[in-house]
Amino acid sequence: MDASRFEELSGWLGERLAIDAECLAEHGRDPSHHPAAPPDAVAYPETTEEVARIVRWCVEADTALVPCGAGTSVEGGTLAPTGGLAVDLSRMNRIKAVHLDDQDAVVEPGVTRVQLGEHLAAEPLFFSVDPGADASIGGMASTGASGTNTVRYGTIRDNVLALEVVLGDGRVIRTGSRARKSSSGYDLTHLFLGAEGTLGVITELTVRLHPRPPAVSVVVGTFEAIGPAVRTVMEVVQRAIPVARAELLDGVAIDAVNRYSGMDHAVAPTLFFEFHGSPAAVEEQASEVESIARGHGGARFRHSLDPAESERLWQARKDAYYAARALRPEAHAVSTDVCVPISRLAECIEETVADIERTAIRAPIVGHVGDGNFHCIVLANIDDSQEIAAVDAFHHRLIERALACGGTSSGEHGVGLGKREFMLKEHGEGVAVMRELKRALDPHGILNPGKLFLD
Amino acid sequence: MDASRFEELSGWLGERLAIDAECLAEHGRDPSHHPAAPPDAVAYPETTEEVARIVRWCVEADTALVPCGAGTSVEGGTLAPTGGLAVDLSRMNRIKAVHLDDQDAVVEPGVTRVQLGEHLAAEPLFFSVDPGADASIGGMASTGASGTNTVRYGTIRDNVLALEVVLGDGRVIRTGSRARKSSSGYDLTHLFLGAEGTLGVITELTVRLHPRPPAVSVVVGTFEAIGPAVRTVMEVVQRAIPVARAELLDGVAIDAVNRYSGMDHAVAPTLFFEFHGSPAAVEEQASEVESIARGHGGARFRHSLDPAESERLWQARKDAYYAARALRPEAHAVSTDVCVPISRLAECIEETVADIERTAIRAPIVGHVGDGNFHCIVLANIDDSQEIAAVDAFHHRLIERALACGGTSSGEHGVGLGKREFMLKEHGEGVAVMRELKRALDPHGILNPGKLFLD
Repeated sequence: MDASRFEELSGWLGERLAIDAECLAEHGRDPSHHPAAPPDAVAYPETTEEVARIVRWCVEADTALVPCGAGTSVEGGTLAPTGGLAVDLSRMNRIKAVHLDDQDAVVEPGVTRVQLGEHLAAEPLFFSVDPGADASIGGMASTGASGTNTVRYGTIRDNVLALEVVLGDGRVIRTGSRARKSSSGYDLTHLFLGAEGTLGVITELTVRLHPRPPAVSVVVGTFEAIGPAVRTVMEVVQRAIPVARAELLDGVAIDAVNRYSGMDHAVAPTLFFEFHGSPAAVEEQASEVESIARGHGGARFRHSLDPAESERLWQARKDAYYAARALRPEAHAVSTDVCVPISRLAECIEETVADIERTAIRAPIVGHVGDGNFHCIVLANIDDSQEIAAVDAFHHRLIERALACGGTSSGEHGVGLGKREFMLKEHGEGVAVMRELKRALDPHGILNPGKLFLD
Repeated sequence: MDASRFEELSGWLGERLAIDAECLAEHGRDPSHHPAAPPDAVAYPETTEEVARIVRWCVEADTALVPCGAGTSVEGGTLAPTGGLAVDLSRMNRIKAVHLDDQDAVVEPGVTRVQLGEHLAAEPLFFSVDPGADASIGGMASTGASGTNTVRYGTIRDNVLALEVVLGDGRVIRTGSRARKSSSGYDLTHLFLGAEGTLGVITELTVRLHPRPPAVSVVVGTFEAIGPAVRTVMEVVQRAIPVARAELLDGVAIDAVNRYSGMDHAVAPTLFFEFHGSPAAVEEQASEVESIARGHGGARFRHSLDPAESERLWQARKDAYYAARALRPEAHAVSTDVCVPISRLAECIEETVADIERTAIRAPIVGHVGDGNFHCIVLANIDDSQEIAAVDAFHHRLIERALACGGTSSGEHGVGLGKREFMLKEHGEGVAVMRELKRALDPHGILNPGKLFLD
């Protein structure tokens, strides 16, 4: 695209309109296996009014607009496959208000979860949604992200009360309110959450905060096989023990972590639990869970009430993604992300493990098993067409399996470029309805084109 | 309307297409102050396919379609101001599945909350949403209803996982899944929740169930004035004590209950709390709350761990609506329904009480105060234009006050006919977006016309 096309924009954005190769390249890649797809220019707005003006300019110039934040999508959500203008919201990173009495905060979309966490460090409240990477909160909202403590505190969809959004024609709307509930009109807030920037650009969010628990305890234990580990979590969830986190690493993932971090965890399926509550309550929950785990053959339990020791225990879980990638540094990681009803989780994971073994692909498994969600981190050489075909076939079988269990193709990563082909199978006629909504709210088709829907 | 117009419908619905005066009249009124507005005919479909066929017939015949269930809307949501066909879903009342392991149930829209409660009586799970009246679950979903234990378990919007919906052109879609989370595509489920039947007819719902608490305790106490009562609840919520219910009745409401039920509660602002958890936890919570209440001058505390005694204590709260109406049997009840951020609740209620006293209207106050939501049950003679003008003016001031506090015009009753005039003030340009969604999903404009939007 002719860079002079952006002259008018750079006239008023100045150096906040970038067209240098490095910046374009940086905005054309993400941690995923999706091929690089750089935009033609990158704008860095600092206010809602600037975003609206940029949107209007894109309509006039018939130019694709790709909203982006921290660039941590693993489904290519912020790549620019049709070129156009990336709108990088990372400079809109003000924390506008923290309302301790109402347990909410008002933030701009570029605020990252670590930034908000540090801002709240001395407060009795915390922001719960924790997707691993230091994602921007606008990006998390657009992706419908979640993370390790969803089983207790919900996904980002459960933690956004209100939004400000710039629509595809430059109009600015506010959705929701700081009241805890409303039955006044359509729920526009949830329409934009998880819409991946295809219906509007989020320019402000009011998010829920949660009281910091008086005590936190951690329990880690290992199992002979993955089935009993998953069935332990199923029983914990079904007994409604209010675990704050319930995470699984399979033996392959544990082995990867040992190699990556020089640790010596027993190489076996391992569960990581965290409990939040009063000191007495977390003790009670921890021993209840350990007793359930023993009933499923669990062993080698380690407990901790000490934050530093807990941090060390959790490190294995936190390193899992990069440790998995380090198993095969020349390969890319294709992330799968199915989520099923908890009652079907053991069968879904066991069949998937058998499938991985049959297929001879390398795919450590990590899971937010308390939610029924797990990832196979499939390591694949994207230049080897035979290997990619095998991985694709595996991914299709995995999603068929999850849908047959009453589940979903994506628990938290979004559709982006990578899950588009599964939309019709999952939603049927619902996809047509989504397209109708897209046409209604983005009549010019400029917002994040090529995402969510196969053309 | 010419009844012969419905001949084709009655040809295949038989006696399940009613046009007798009694049935039309019954479907043309609800418990609210809104004038009667009967439909021209009533259809009683028994399957999704029949609903779809009826919708297609209505499109062909350019006839308004008004979905209805138990008829408990207090905003005229199921009235037929433009006539047309009422589609009464009360015969679609099968409980299709209860999944104990996944803590969900699949129900048809005509299932009522009492019916589902009785079905689950022997199970370890319960359905939490409790809006007082024995509403249908489809109606609750369409209204965005909630009730007394929202503070702990959420509104109906938080408790629906998946829907089957017949759209305005007869297409049938399924939204969501039984998985606990998903980031696959737009959140169509939440689009239909609270849409009051204007975007589609809900024909099946998958709802969340919650574990029955091992112990329940109740605490009731009175206050010298309404401000300290509300500030007690604010402190309880802000300290994150996990109360299951936190309800307020003002002195006028308590007096009404005493007259209605021959009880002798002290006539003073009264708080009703319920706690769910282990026996030890509910005891701890109850004494923590009582101690907070004493700090605000609370007195006359009654505790109960006994279900029968608890039921008796709660009866006052349950009778409040009918007791209020009995204060002035010739009058109608105009329900207000504002909801504000909890930090603003005391000022909003205190200003409202002063307003009621100045205006000399009769309006007992009951509140789901743990959510920031309260109702003034305004008793008004709807044939007295001067009185209605005073009530209208009061209602406008109340909503202005709630919106100025960052709240909403309706916490749980919906917009229906009664709150349309406040939509623009509350949502601004958002109303235009809602209209665009309406046009996209109901292009023929047949679904529940005249509701939500002022024409």
